[in-house]
Amino acid sequence: MKRSKLSTEAYIDGVLSGDRILLSRAITLCESHRPEDVSQAEALLMAIMPHTGKAVRIGITGVPGVGKSTFIESFGGLVTQKGKKLAVLTIDPSSQKTKGSILGDKTRMEELARNPNAFIRPSASGSALGGVSSKTRSVMLLCEAAGFDVIFIETVGVGQSETLVHGMVDFFLLLMLAGAGDELQGIKKGIMEMADAVVINKADGPNQAVAKRAKVDYQNALHLFPMDESGWLPKVKLCSALEKTGLEDVWEVIQEQQEQVKQSGYFQLNRQRQQVNWLKENVNELLETAFYQNSEIQSVLNDVIEKVEKGELPAMNAANLLMKKFSDQN
Amino acid sequence: MKRSKLSTEAYIDGVLSGDRILLSRAITLCESHRPEDVSQAEALLMAIMPHTGKAVRIGITGVPGVGKSTFIESFGGLVTQKGKKLAVLTIDPSSQKTKGSILGDKTRMEELARNPNAFIRPSASGSALGGVSSKTRSVMLLCEAAGFDVIFIETVGVGQSETLVHGMVDFFLLLMLAGAGDELQGIKKGIMEMADAVVINKADGPNQAVAKRAKVDYQNALHLFPMDESGWLPKVKLCSALEKTGLEDVWEVIQEQQEQVKQSGYFQLNRQRQQVNWLKENVNELLETAFYQNSEIQSVLNDVIEKVEKGELPAMNAANLLMKKFSDQN
Repeated sequence: MKRSKLSTEAYIDGVLSGDRILLSRAITLCESHRPEDVSQAEALLMAIMPHTGKAVRIGITGVPGVGKSTFIESFGGLVTQKGKKLAVLTIDPSSQKTKGSILGDKTRMEELARNPNAFIRPSASGSALGGVSSKTRSVMLLCEAAGFDVIFIETVGVGQSETLVHGMVDFFLLLMLAGAGDELQGIKKGIMEMADAVVINKADGPNQAVAKRAKVDYQNALHLFPMDESGWLPKVKLCSALEKTGLEDVWEVIQEQQEQVKQSGYFQLNRQRQQVNWLKENVNELLETAFYQNSEIQSVLNDVIEKVEKGELPAMNAANLLMKKFSDQN
Repeated sequence: MKRSKLSTEAYIDGVLSGDRILLSRAITLCESHRPEDVSQAEALLMAIMPHTGKAVRIGITGVPGVGKSTFIESFGGLVTQKGKKLAVLTIDPSSQKTKGSILGDKTRMEELARNPNAFIRPSASGSALGGVSSKTRSVMLLCEAAGFDVIFIETVGVGQSETLVHGMVDFFLLLMLAGAGDELQGIKKGIMEMADAVVINKADGPNQAVAKRAKVDYQNALHLFPMDESGWLPKVKLCSALEKTGLEDVWEVIQEQQEQVKQSGYFQLNRQRQQVNWLKENVNELLETAFYQNSEIQSVLNDVIEKVEKGELPAMNAANLLMKKFSDQN
């Protein structure tokens, strides 16, 4: 069943008034690749721009098994109890399963899904060639314009999405477990150093002693790292999402960091840089899409990659060859 | 004074016979952007491909002041004493000063410059829009074909070049100082986690005690990090490049890691992936160069960036607008 098309005015009014159904439809519009949708989405984004930027943008990452869903449920519950309106955007580009699977995320976070001050939305990854970043940023802006005060962007922590998410948030939280290190296997290298806070989950029952020790170890380790340009020293916190303990601490840390970076001017600087990077990423995405979806390129790409992999063809030659094919066509 | 042009055959023979002067000229050819040079460089690379891949490729990074030049002098000296032929490629994309400044690097590493088994070559960054990566890889291949057994790729450790260098080497070495952490200020976040070895330099005289302590601290910290896919656990070593101590240890660690990854099959896998990534990076570079050097784009780019920075224009809209200008022209 196809829904009737909405006017751009209807979208704008709907989003700005915080209408959930119209916000959801506006998000779908912004995720669409159909040319008429893209230009309507552009008009919508342009109109809402003055109403964006006011939320605290928090990236949350961690490998499967760390308890991300429960953490977001509990921590999200706390955030709404503080009178904040919360939007939760989830990204999992490694899995096609979640594509549009709103029901999946709502089952995963049952309490939050019923919470009138929370809004949960999975990010459709759109195309295999990226698109995660630009679409999610647009969704974030829509949620801000719709009056959400806090935005969680959840990512799975094992692929490329964490770096993208780190580039679009004000605070980056790494969720971990205390243990022998097995749970670290899946975390991408470099992520730990990007975290503004490492939160050790499941610090409950018999786990508490190990968790406390891990906290000290991580705190010591993070002191050895290069200081963030913001001047913020990453904090390590313990929590039990299940028992709802330690969550106030996590909220405090975010407040503290936000105060510090706003006072130092880093907050504004970072937001401006992120905007410009977003432009560059978008340009790259558009260029790559045009290139890799070109039929001439597609007809030879696998063959070329194989030769490069085997060392039969230097990568530079291969790139020049592909580029010539592409330019000849345009 | 313009030198006479060489035939592709002359370049191939010169490189394969290990002739220094012809190798230098072949490198200049590969760094050139002139279309006739590019196609001659392609023919040259194609011809030498079967003779590449045999060197140990070592990335060396660290902020200014850490003693990189002295380390490369001393460690490079050790490598040549072991009967190895060493090529040192230096990259500093943050500075335009080193562009072609061979003399600068040779003064910086006087002993190595006089060493008949060493070859020092700075990488001309070529264009402001990257090019570091693709050019340096080509130079690396030329050096391998010319019979060099060990290649150092030196980078300054504060920009984007470390990630690029990490993506083209077999072993990534981070040079550090023991101290209050001031020397860490400039290191880009995430670099520490990428290191296969952290080498603490200037572990001499009264510094020794602090250095030993730092070694333990870093070793503990690195244990808390996600294990590398290769299965290699990063090592921390002490050295004094000035007093030429600890350098054997560093060489040992590289040997140990190489043995391990060759046995596990990771070495080959990593090399293959690097080749394919190199292709993709080259394609991106070519696409970006075509885009950002387009006169229509250049005429509006600054204005568009300013509007995006100020939040007046959504980045998605800006990207679509630029892309339309670009496509209309092609």
